[in-house]
Amino acid sequence: MVREAAHRIRPMVQRTPIFTSQDASALAGKHLFFKCENFQRGGAFKIRGASNLILSLSPEAIARGVVAFSSGNHAQATAIAAKHVGAKATIVMPQDAPKCKLEPTRALGATIITYDRLRDNREVIAARILEESGATLVPPYDHTLIIAGQGTAALELLEDHPDLDALAVCIGGGGLISGCATIAKSINPNIRIFGVEPELANDTWQSFRKGERVEIPPSHTIADGLRSPSPGKLTFPIIQRLVEDIVLVSEQEIRQAVEFCFTRMKMVVEPSGAVSIAAALFGKLPSDVKRVGLIVSGGNMDPIAA
Amino acid sequence: MVREAAHRIRPMVQRTPIFTSQDASALAGKHLFFKCENFQRGGAFKIRGASNLILSLSPEAIARGVVAFSSGNHAQATAIAAKHVGAKATIVMPQDAPKCKLEPTRALGATIITYDRLRDNREVIAARILEESGATLVPPYDHTLIIAGQGTAALELLEDHPDLDALAVCIGGGGLISGCATIAKSINPNIRIFGVEPELANDTWQSFRKGERVEIPPSHTIADGLRSPSPGKLTFPIIQRLVEDIVLVSEQEIRQAVEFCFTRMKMVVEPSGAVSIAAALFGKLPSDVKRVGLIVSGGNMDPIAA
Repeated sequence: MVREAAHRIRPMVQRTPIFTSQDASALAGKHLFFKCENFQRGGAFKIRGASNLILSLSPEAIARGVVAFSSGNHAQATAIAAKHVGAKATIVMPQDAPKCKLEPTRALGATIITYDRLRDNREVIAARILEESGATLVPPYDHTLIIAGQGTAALELLEDHPDLDALAVCIGGGGLISGCATIAKSINPNIRIFGVEPELANDTWQSFRKGERVEIPPSHTIADGLRSPSPGKLTFPIIQRLVEDIVLVSEQEIRQAVEFCFTRMKMVVEPSGAVSIAAALFGKLPSDVKRVGLIVSGGNMDPIAA
Repeated sequence: MVREAAHRIRPMVQRTPIFTSQDASALAGKHLFFKCENFQRGGAFKIRGASNLILSLSPEAIARGVVAFSSGNHAQATAIAAKHVGAKATIVMPQDAPKCKLEPTRALGATIITYDRLRDNREVIAARILEESGATLVPPYDHTLIIAGQGTAALELLEDHPDLDALAVCIGGGGLISGCATIAKSINPNIRIFGVEPELANDTWQSFRKGERVEIPPSHTIADGLRSPSPGKLTFPIIQRLVEDIVLVSEQEIRQAVEFCFTRMKMVVEPSGAVSIAAALFGKLPSDVKRVGLIVSGGNMDPIAA
C-alpha cells in the first residue's frame, strides 16, 4: 500500500532532499541522514497521507467534500489536496493553533471551524459536521490510506540510502511512524525503528510500556503537532509490533534541536519536527546504531519561536 | 579557471541543492531557481573562493599561514580552508560582526583580531600583519582565484538548469557576480546577468552608472555582507563588461524576503543572501526574464533577526 501510495501521490508531493551535517553527525556519534519534510508542500509530511486518501475518493464523495480535525499541518495538507481535486474542505482547528498553520489553511479556501482545545472534543465537533454534510472524514492518522501515504517518506529515504541501520521518527497519533516502519521493515527486516516523543506528551511511551493504549491529559509541549492524547487504534498495534523502543526528549532538548537546525543547518524545523533530531543529538538512541535516518517531519513555525 | 576551480575545490565544498517554490515563482511572475549556498559548508558561498586560493598555495606559503579581513562569511571560509591544509589563519573582523559569524570562526582555531568598522581601516591592519608574519593574504573578492572559485556556484546551477535566461546575484565587493557572470556567459552568451545591491550600499550601482569606481561612506544596511564601500579593481571591469544592469532593494524588501524564506521555504537566508530573492519578488527584474537563477549567497544570521 505504501508503494501504491507513492505512485498515486507523485503529482502532489515533493521528493524532499536528504541532508547530512558533519557537525550533527559528530555531536551524535552517528552518521545522520535528515529526510527534510519541512521542505515538503504545505511544510510537513502530512500532504502524503491526506493526498493518498483524497485521491482515492469517488467523484460522488469529492462532490460532498471533506472534513479534517487537526492542530495544523494535517489541516493545511487536507486543504491543499482538497483544492487539487476540487472538493470543499472544512477544517476543525484548535483556537490556539500557531498562526503559521491557521493562515495558510484559510488562504487555501478551506472553511475553518475553531474550538477550545482544553474544553471541547474535536471528534464530536467533526462528527456533527460529517452528519450534516455527508462529507468524508480525513483522519489525521488512524486510517490505512493515511498511514500508507505517510510511509512514502521512509520509502524515498531508503531508496536513496538503503544501508541505514535505524530510523528515528516522531510520534503524535502514530501515523508517520506506522507507515515508515511498515515499509522500512518490508525493505530491510533488520532495520531498527525508534519512536520519539516529548516527555510532556508521552502517551505512546506509556502505552508501549503498559501494553495498552493510555490516554493522557491535554499537553502543553512546544511540539504542538505531537499533543495527541493517545496513540491510534490502528497505529498502536503496528507500533507494538515494529518499533524497538520509544525514547523521550525534554522541552529544552527540543528547543536546542530547533536552534541547531537554524544556526548550523540553516533550515527551519518546527519543534515537532525536531524531536527525532533531539533524540540523536542528546544520546537517546542506542550506541550501536551507526547510520540513522531522521524524519524531519515539518517546518511550520512562527518566526518569533526561533 | 572556474572549471579548474570546480575540480580543485570538490573535496571541500558541498554541491548545494537548487530549490524551487511555486509560491515564490507565482509572486515573481517568473520561474525561480534558488541556488542554496546558505546550505554550503560554513553557511555561505565564500568557501568556494577561499579554498580555491588556499588549495593553490605552495607548502612554503602554507607554512607561513594566511590572513583574511572580512565581515564574517569570508572569515569562516578562510578558517575552514586553512584548517583543512594545516595553515595558521589570522582573521581581521569588525567588532560589530554578527556573533553567528564570529563564534564559528574562533571555534575553528583561527586567531581573531577585531577593529572598529567606522574608524579603522581593515586593509591597513591586515597589511601590518602580513608584513610581520610573511603570511599570504586571502582577499575577500579582488583576486582571480577567489573570483574563479565563487563562479563555481553558477557553474553547478547551469549544469543542472542550462536553460535559464538570467541570473540575479548580490554584489558586495563583486567577487561572486564576477565569477558567476564569467562562467555563465561562457556557457550561454545570451544569458542576462543582473546585480543586486541594497539601496543603502549602492556603491556598485553608482559606479556602474558613473563608469568608474565610486566609494561610499560606511553603510548600515542589514545586509552586513554587502557593506563594502566600493567594487573591486578586478571585479568592476568584469561587472561593466558582463552585467546588464544593477538593481536596488530597500531594507524593508530585504526583510520581507528573509521572512518569506523562513515562513514559506523553511530555510534560513541572511539579509545579504536574500537581496537577489527580494529583487525577484518585488519586481526589480525585467518582465521579459522568465527563468531566473537566484544565488542565495548565505544563511549566517543570529536567530533574533528572524
